[in-house]
Amino acid sequence: MNDLKARILGLVEKDLTAIEAELEHHLNPHLDLVREVAGHILFSGGKRLRPLLLVLAARLCDYRGDYDKTFSISLEYLHAATLLHDDLIDEAELRRGKPVAHSIWGNATTILVGDFLLARALSIAAGTGNIEIIKVVSGITENMSQGEIHQLSRKGDLSLDETEYREVIWRKTAVLFEGACRSAGLLANADPDRIEALSAYGANLGIAFQMADDLIDYTSDTQVLGKKAGADLREGKLTLPVIAALEAADSHDRKRMAAIIANPDFSLEDFEALKGLLDQYGGLAYTRQKAREHVMLAKKALAEFTPSETTTILNDLADFTLQRRA
Amino acid sequence: MNDLKARILGLVEKDLTAIEAELEHHLNPHLDLVREVAGHILFSGGKRLRPLLLVLAARLCDYRGDYDKTFSISLEYLHAATLLHDDLIDEAELRRGKPVAHSIWGNATTILVGDFLLARALSIAAGTGNIEIIKVVSGITENMSQGEIHQLSRKGDLSLDETEYREVIWRKTAVLFEGACRSAGLLANADPDRIEALSAYGANLGIAFQMADDLIDYTSDTQVLGKKAGADLREGKLTLPVIAALEAADSHDRKRMAAIIANPDFSLEDFEALKGLLDQYGGLAYTRQKAREHVMLAKKALAEFTPSETTTILNDLADFTLQRRA
Repeated sequence: MNDLKARILGLVEKDLTAIEAELEHHLNPHLDLVREVAGHILFSGGKRLRPLLLVLAARLCDYRGDYDKTFSISLEYLHAATLLHDDLIDEAELRRGKPVAHSIWGNATTILVGDFLLARALSIAAGTGNIEIIKVVSGITENMSQGEIHQLSRKGDLSLDETEYREVIWRKTAVLFEGACRSAGLLANADPDRIEALSAYGANLGIAFQMADDLIDYTSDTQVLGKKAGADLREGKLTLPVIAALEAADSHDRKRMAAIIANPDFSLEDFEALKGLLDQYGGLAYTRQKAREHVMLAKKALAEFTPSETTTILNDLADFTLQRRA
Repeated sequence: MNDLKARILGLVEKDLTAIEAELEHHLNPHLDLVREVAGHILFSGGKRLRPLLLVLAARLCDYRGDYDKTFSISLEYLHAATLLHDDLIDEAELRRGKPVAHSIWGNATTILVGDFLLARALSIAAGTGNIEIIKVVSGITENMSQGEIHQLSRKGDLSLDETEYREVIWRKTAVLFEGACRSAGLLANADPDRIEALSAYGANLGIAFQMADDLIDYTSDTQVLGKKAGADLREGKLTLPVIAALEAADSHDRKRMAAIIANPDFSLEDFEALKGLLDQYGGLAYTRQKAREHVMLAKKALAEFTPSETTTILNDLADFTLQRRA
C-alpha cells in the first residue's frame, strides 16, 4: 500500500466502518437469495468511494444530522446494481478476482437483483425527505443507463472522438460522483455556491477516475486487476488511450491498430503490439495528462471551502485517482 | 369487443387520450436508440390500465391539481421496464403479437433501457413533490423484482402451494395496482380511510387480474393471446390452475401432470392432456372462483365512496378482469 492510500485510510477509518455497518443493516430483502446475490457484489472488497465522498462532502458543509451514512449507501447500492447489469452485458468473467454473479446465479436472478438494488437505493434516498435529492439520485440512474447504451451503440467504431468519449464517461461514471457530492450539499442545506463547488469537484473527480480506469486496462495485468486485462478492447470499447493514439498515428500504424481492434479474439502478442503503439503515439501519456487536468480542476473547486482535515482527505482522494493500479 | 369493454372505453376515452399524450411527451431520452426501444414496448397496444387506475382513483378523491396524468405514466414506465426485463428472463419470443425487444436490439440494450425506464418512473414520481408517494413507487419496484425472483427460485417445484403462489402474485402484480391507487389517494391528500379503501381495491383487483392472466394461459390460444399459449408451463411457472388441480388429483393423474410439467418441450398433445386434467380436477373453476372473490372484495372496498360515474367505471374495470381473453 502506498503512503497516500495509507494516509487516506487512516483518516477515514471510522467513516468506512460506519458505512459498512449501514450497508449490512439496510440490505434486508424479503428473500435470502436476494441477500446472497446482492451480498456477493456488495461485500467483495469494494472501496466504498462513493458513499465516502458523500459523507465527506456533507461534513464539509457542516451537516449536523444523522442520516448521512445511511443515505450514503444508496450510492453503493446504485453502483452495485450497475455492476451486476454491466458484468452481464459485457460478458465479464471476473470482478475483483471473484466469478461474476451471473456466472453463479444466472442472468435472470442477476438482472432482478440489480433491479431490486436500484429500487432500494431510491427508497433509502427517499428517507432523506428531500425531493431535490431524490431527483438527483433518479437522474443518476437515467444518465448511467444512457451512458452505457451510448457506449454499446458505438462499439468498435473508430470514428468515436474525444468529445463523444467524454460525454459517455460523464454519464456512465462522473454523474454518480457528481451526484454524491451534490446530494451531500443538499442534505446539509448548504449554500448554492458550495453545492456547485462540490458538484464540480465530484464531476471532475469522476472523469479523472474513469480516465485512470481506462488507462489501467492497458497498464496493469490480470492478477493485479482482479479481472482480465484488455477487457475494454475485447468488448470493442474505445477509450481515450486508443482514441488519442489513433488520432496521432500514421496511416500504416492506424491500419495495424484498426485490425487488432476489429478482432475480438486478438492474441496476447497483438495486445502487446497495440500497447506499444498506444505508448509510441502518446495515447497513454495524453490520457494521463487529461486525467491530471481533471484532478487539478477537482482540487481547484475545493478552494471554495476553508482548509480542514476534510478538504485534505478530499484533495488526497483526488490525487489518489492517478495512483490507482486496479 | 364485448359490451362491458365498450362501455368502459366510452367513459375513459378522454383520460386515455390525455395519458397517451403524456407518455409520448415525457419519453425524452438523450439517445434516439432509447426512445426506439422504449417506444417499442410502450406503444404496442398496452391497455394503460395502471395509469388509468391512478387517474380514476385520484378523481374519486376529488383531486384538483394537474399532475395526475403526468404522474400516472410513471406506472406505465415501471410496467414497461418490468416487461422488458421479464421477457428477457422468460426467453419469450412474442409480446402483444410483436417480437420482443431483446430479439431485435439484444440483451444488453434491453436491460439498460429497462433500467432507464425504472429511473424515469422515479423522476416523474419525484415531480409530485410528495415523499410518501416516492416511497410507494420505489417500494413497488422492490416488491416486483423480489416477486419475480421468488417465482424463478420455485420454478418447476410441485411443492409450491396456494399461500406461496398468492405471495408471489401479490408482489409481482398486485403491488403495482395497489400502489397506483394508494399514490392517487396520497396525491389527492385524501383521508387515511379512503386511501386504505383505494389500496384494498387496487390490491384485490391486481390479484384477480393475475389469476385471470394465469387462467388465460390455459384457456386462450396463441393468436388471441399475442404470445405463445402454455408459456407459463414451458417456463416451469406453476400457477393456481395447476396448483389446485395437483392438490385435487389422484396419485396416478398427479404423476401424469408432474411428468408433463417436468418436460419443457412438452407436445401440443401433452398440453391438451394437461388442460383436460386441470378442467377435470377443477383447477380452472377454482381459479375462476378465487378471482371472482377478489373482484367482489375490490368492489366492496369502493363502498367507502359515494356512487358516481367514477365508481361505476372502477366497478366495471373489476368485472372486466374476469372477462379478459388476452
